[in-house]
Amino acid sequence: MSYTYEYARPALTTDCVVFGLDDEDLKVLLIQRDIPPYEARWALPGGFVRVGEDIDESARRELREETSLKNVFLEQLYSFGHPRRDPREHVVTIAYYALVNLLEHQPRADTDARKAAWFPLDDLPTLAFDHGKILETARERLRGKLRYEPIGFELLPEKFTLTELQKLYERILDEEIDKRNFRKKVKKLGILEETEEVQSDVAHRAARLYRFDQKQYKALLKKGFNFEL
Amino acid sequence: MSYTYEYARPALTTDCVVFGLDDEDLKVLLIQRDIPPYEARWALPGGFVRVGEDIDESARRELREETSLKNVFLEQLYSFGHPRRDPREHVVTIAYYALVNLLEHQPRADTDARKAAWFPLDDLPTLAFDHGKILETARERLRGKLRYEPIGFELLPEKFTLTELQKLYERILDEEIDKRNFRKKVKKLGILEETEEVQSDVAHRAARLYRFDQKQYKALLKKGFNFEL
Repeated sequence: MSYTYEYARPALTTDCVVFGLDDEDLKVLLIQRDIPPYEARWALPGGFVRVGEDIDESARRELREETSLKNVFLEQLYSFGHPRRDPREHVVTIAYYALVNLLEHQPRADTDARKAAWFPLDDLPTLAFDHGKILETARERLRGKLRYEPIGFELLPEKFTLTELQKLYERILDEEIDKRNFRKKVKKLGILEETEEVQSDVAHRAARLYRFDQKQYKALLKKGFNFEL
Repeated sequence: MSYTYEYARPALTTDCVVFGLDDEDLKVLLIQRDIPPYEARWALPGGFVRVGEDIDESARRELREETSLKNVFLEQLYSFGHPRRDPREHVVTIAYYALVNLLEHQPRADTDARKAAWFPLDDLPTLAFDHGKILETARERLRGKLRYEPIGFELLPEKFTLTELQKLYERILDEEIDKRNFRKKVKKLGILEETEEVQSDVAHRAARLYRFDQKQYKALLKKGFNFEL
């Protein structure tokens, strides 16, 4: 079966940049391509949008099919449409991104992918297509998000130490942060609730545990702020 | 001539939300469609992406063809891909937006458009397709931009009064702003240079003229801020 159109049209895909945080690193989810072009090259999970399929659903389906990841909250990032970004033909891609707790999302390769795996951002293979550029755009967006919105709610345990929160920021920003300055600024945001509890099972002096004030957190998500470190 | 593809693919368009500021209002540029669907309905300027044409160029071309506007700095807004947003078939659109000085951009209808005109945002006709939703998304983005970035450089004369700057913010935000608070906050940003000059030809007491400190302005464009009013 084939499809005939009166006017030529570019092909349309979606691609997903899924960032994963663990205790060590900020990583990105890649698949190893099983078909040409760029066979055996690592790439962002993604594929062709079906007619009649919403683009958000297309991104979720491709992510699921190629990596088995489900229940990931994908946000639209940007569309890339350079005529020669794909050697086959003019393919426009709508990119999405997400940030997840890596430990809760173990990938398993499926359709069109040989492997699926988390890669540390400072040790990436050469990516297929313009996926390196798409990844860089997503990384900038994520850094920007951190500056304007509270982050961490779905990435940290319910109760966490300020050191854990700082490490999360440091991994996303990829720079060391001054501890005193960070604590002062993050407390000023008013999204943290000090609990009565401290860490257990630690060799050093047990640190105070905090949790997010959900109401304040949601209000700031809406209102935004500028968190300069 | 027709084009045959092995797999069915959605059609792809670009649409442009061009906001225009004059002394009175924030307006948006619309065209009256000359062809079905939605013939005679007002809509955002836009049209089909050609194979081999970059999507940014497609947006600029459609804007030029339908309204004669050139040299407009379009930024990508968001892509809309609901399968039933166009009655003809599944059409995905990549939306762009811009903010221009209306007085420097007088539209003239062309290809596929009967008319092209500026409409005040508080007095809009019913728009074709999902263009009302696209416009609303652009409006939110513009408000957000104002909060995080300096704005006004290309919209105000080289030298302007603080009242002119405040009016610009009020028109974009669609709300009145407290004068004293606004002045305090905008001065604190450090992007304004006080000149030695005052207004001429005014009946009331002549107000001081300011200009933007280009270096600071550019630095803040990059760094961002949170301008809460």
